[in-house]
Amino acid sequence: MRNVRALISYDGSKFYGWQRQAGFHSVQEGLEHALLALTGQSIVVHGSSRTDTGVHALGQVAHFRLDTRLTDDRLRHALNFYLEEGVVIRRLETAPEDFHARFSALGKRYMYVTATTRFRPPFGVQYSHWVPQALALADMRAAARVLVGEHDFSAFASSGSPRRTNVRRVRSLHIIPRRERFALVIEGNGFLYNMVRTIAGTLIEVGKGSLSAADVERILRSADRSQAGPTAPAEGLYLVAVRYAERPFRGRDRGERGVPGLFGY
Amino acid sequence: MRNVRALISYDGSKFYGWQRQAGFHSVQEGLEHALLALTGQSIVVHGSSRTDTGVHALGQVAHFRLDTRLTDDRLRHALNFYLEEGVVIRRLETAPEDFHARFSALGKRYMYVTATTRFRPPFGVQYSHWVPQALALADMRAAARVLVGEHDFSAFASSGSPRRTNVRRVRSLHIIPRRERFALVIEGNGFLYNMVRTIAGTLIEVGKGSLSAADVERILRSADRSQAGPTAPAEGLYLVAVRYAERPFRGRDRGERGVPGLFGY
Repeated sequence: MRNVRALISYDGSKFYGWQRQAGFHSVQEGLEHALLALTGQSIVVHGSSRTDTGVHALGQVAHFRLDTRLTDDRLRHALNFYLEEGVVIRRLETAPEDFHARFSALGKRYMYVTATTRFRPPFGVQYSHWVPQALALADMRAAARVLVGEHDFSAFASSGSPRRTNVRRVRSLHIIPRRERFALVIEGNGFLYNMVRTIAGTLIEVGKGSLSAADVERILRSADRSQAGPTAPAEGLYLVAVRYAERPFRGRDRGERGVPGLFGY
Repeated sequence: MRNVRALISYDGSKFYGWQRQAGFHSVQEGLEHALLALTGQSIVVHGSSRTDTGVHALGQVAHFRLDTRLTDDRLRHALNFYLEEGVVIRRLETAPEDFHARFSALGKRYMYVTATTRFRPPFGVQYSHWVPQALALADMRAAARVLVGEHDFSAFASSGSPRRTNVRRVRSLHIIPRRERFALVIEGNGFLYNMVRTIAGTLIEVGKGSLSAADVERILRSADRSQAGPTAPAEGLYLVAVRYAERPFRGRDRGERGVPGLFGY
């Protein structure tokens, strides 16, 4: 049995999230169907993150075990043939026996995209949040600096599955403008449920002038979710990359590209 | 009664084309509904072009007559409030009494976007055509030069409404690559039914090596539609701009932007 890992992109608007659930079409189910169609075997796919409905992935990582004589490239090509529109395996390689997409992960990078045009952009409603005003990006950056580092992020977490601790390390948080859009790019060793979307929603309030960097510091210390801003909607969120000790998917590859370029990010 | 002209963008995947038709939701109908909701009057909207189902517009132009005390900016804002997702009035201004979106038009610019990634891009299936191979863009440019100028384009027209003449002047035809996509940008004084999509489909055959520039010259001279390549699908086509003698919509405006940026074009 080979342990195989895959780098996967998907349009979150076409799926009910990553995780398999009865009666709803998920990315995990789509991949498992493709594996069944190709091999005749029922194979479980393990993802690094259970992205919610509407949340996109540029670089989700998953692993699965299977028995096949296909080379990595032919396996990827065959699986992409069986996958439906809206999901693609960008890279695929045989992994060390002990590689686990979720438990081996050391960190993740997410991007949250918001348009700030006066009128709702007619294209790509499903790919970006929209706020009908210019935001004070410098104030948002000042507030973002408060969040970088190791903190208890309880104030920015929706009550999801209970965790041992709500302490996480945010390695970096950048705000990158492109025309009348901006991306908030955040890296950390792990994220609580809805943490990126709540940080985005809170920093947008800062950009509007409703909250200050000092308010964000107070909110963080309060560890009280009711203090923070709203959870920004799913359509703006992208899982960009997952970090592992051994840096997988390294070589250049034609099939890898073609995914970025959306809105110039 | 004021004669008003509007610069309109829309996501063609959300409408059954521009033109009103019973039982199908069109852009024209959406605009007329917004005008009815705002003014209580049944107002007919005249567009420059009847784009097909799935065809997008960055700069469709339309005119309509109405009786209102609203300023141009307030009228635009109010109409955008009533318009549904996927269509927006970018600019709006009072036009000369004799301005007609269709009959005053001197020319149009279209863009045809094709991705050439090995696997189908997971995002924006509705915004771009896809060919799973790299194309010989230099050969396509050589063939494109054959089409520039005044010619009988019968070989590149689907049988639509009969015309007095099939002679049209193509002012320019450029092929602009961006990462693993390219846009074919074509300007002319008028286009026959499906002419841009048939030119795109034929030039893609050149890019694949199935046709040469000499073949395209022969096809053009044949005036025989069965000689040309396939009609490329609607999702790659954008009406970019309409040209008029007086160059409308000139001043800068915040509401205008935010539309480009899709795939970096």
